[in-house]
Amino acid sequence: MTHKKQPKGCIGIVGLGLIGGSLGLELKDLGWYVKGLVHKPLTVEKATKKQLVHEVSTDSKILSDCDLVILALPLKQLLRPNKSLVNALPKSAVITDVGSVKEPIVKAWERLHPRFVGSHPMSGTEQSGVEAGRKGLFANRPWVATPNPSTEKEALHSVHQLATSLGSKWLIADAKKHDESVSLISHLPILVSAALLVSIEKYKDSNIYELSRNLASTGFADTTRVGGGNPELGTSITSHNTKAILNSLSNFRLSLEELESTIRHGKWSDLYEKLEVSKLIRAEFIDP
Amino acid sequence: MTHKKQPKGCIGIVGLGLIGGSLGLELKDLGWYVKGLVHKPLTVEKATKKQLVHEVSTDSKILSDCDLVILALPLKQLLRPNKSLVNALPKSAVITDVGSVKEPIVKAWERLHPRFVGSHPMSGTEQSGVEAGRKGLFANRPWVATPNPSTEKEALHSVHQLATSLGSKWLIADAKKHDESVSLISHLPILVSAALLVSIEKYKDSNIYELSRNLASTGFADTTRVGGGNPELGTSITSHNTKAILNSLSNFRLSLEELESTIRHGKWSDLYEKLEVSKLIRAEFIDP
Repeated sequence: MTHKKQPKGCIGIVGLGLIGGSLGLELKDLGWYVKGLVHKPLTVEKATKKQLVHEVSTDSKILSDCDLVILALPLKQLLRPNKSLVNALPKSAVITDVGSVKEPIVKAWERLHPRFVGSHPMSGTEQSGVEAGRKGLFANRPWVATPNPSTEKEALHSVHQLATSLGSKWLIADAKKHDESVSLISHLPILVSAALLVSIEKYKDSNIYELSRNLASTGFADTTRVGGGNPELGTSITSHNTKAILNSLSNFRLSLEELESTIRHGKWSDLYEKLEVSKLIRAEFIDP
Repeated sequence: MTHKKQPKGCIGIVGLGLIGGSLGLELKDLGWYVKGLVHKPLTVEKATKKQLVHEVSTDSKILSDCDLVILALPLKQLLRPNKSLVNALPKSAVITDVGSVKEPIVKAWERLHPRFVGSHPMSGTEQSGVEAGRKGLFANRPWVATPNPSTEKEALHSVHQLATSLGSKWLIADAKKHDESVSLISHLPILVSAALLVSIEKYKDSNIYELSRNLASTGFADTTRVGGGNPELGTSITSHNTKAILNSLSNFRLSLEELESTIRHGKWSDLYEKLEVSKLIRAEFIDP
């Protein structure tokens, strides 16, 4: 099979981890000819076995005839991409990324490629790596693009079509606002949830720890899920969205201190009101 | 049908909310004759329609021939039970409760009934009320009993049999240790999760709030689930387990401040280590 036969043309995916691999599987189904560029020969082997894409290589030349390239790389590599990758991207191709922090990526890439569109599919699971790819990861999930005045309209349109063809909910946001917003609803929960786990680690040598392990139930499991995720990803996100995250964290700390003071002073009707606010806010954010 | 035909005898359930109603449905299936005592005539009607129990009444005399009575009442009513209820409990019956804080309940009830056994089935959903009862709520969930030296062995044995017949994982703990432990793994997550929601409420009049609502995904939903629960229950738990909760909260606040300082100083390898600890602790607490 050659991609000449694929009516939609050729998509390149750089990096075949959870997001890249899942994109590969679905884009194949949608009629694209899909090529993968990866770093290690072992990943070529695994990706071939899992049939994530039609062709996979460690040689960036593989991207030469792609119409659209998705950079599904870790933040660090998106921010300091290696030169051979940048040089291998066809000037005529639309380039997009999947990074979870947008302002620094957009700043870096608007200088590197004329048809770059920053974007962020808000999908994920605890898994990572070439074995993690699976279908259905993007359906009904937000996919945010963060164009700026210099973003090419036609390129933005291509990424829009890509996202909606995968069933994602399409959104446009300013990159800085995106980063502030995800610091609140994605990065802050990771850190708060991690602090909860770290605070429990302090009981490690007591018999309360063992009892707590036996009693922990669904409430604990849900509240700590994102805090128990990939340390690499958590560190990378935090080090690249530091300012917004520190704002969200200190705002959270104030709310926590207020709650603690309410409890310390036994102001139960105030506590009730705060818990009513929590319930209302959650209902506004999450469909039941 | 009369309970004479039921080989296992008669169980009374006081209160037919989520826990009481769910117990009724399952204990009927297990061959008990089940009677419900409720406060309002409307609840009698609804419980009858949902067939939660065999017989239901607002008259505490209904408990007169029960072999075992489960007090499935809110904490406040467990701690200050009304006299007519206490007087209506057969002296020969085993009495247990389902309250989520144990030390004050055990203290109150060991004086009120000779065959009382404090217990806590760790099950729950967001729902509450007479419409919430459903089967399968207790299977594979911890059910902790908190006997003290004066607890009658045979009564404890009956509660043990009850819990395991429902598929629960049986545990024995000292009441005070139970309260410390649930302050960590159940009450602290509620308050931390609520503080997260309250901290987001502060953005209400900004465009970040609207964008965040659109971007909030499964991570946010999971981390805030317990904080968006019943304000009555949250307040009641906190006001009756205040000391242990304040300890857990200030311990959590320290962990959060440490995390914030790590980020503020850009100590990314320290942050990585903390997130690794979080991941390990969660793996110890929650089976994957």
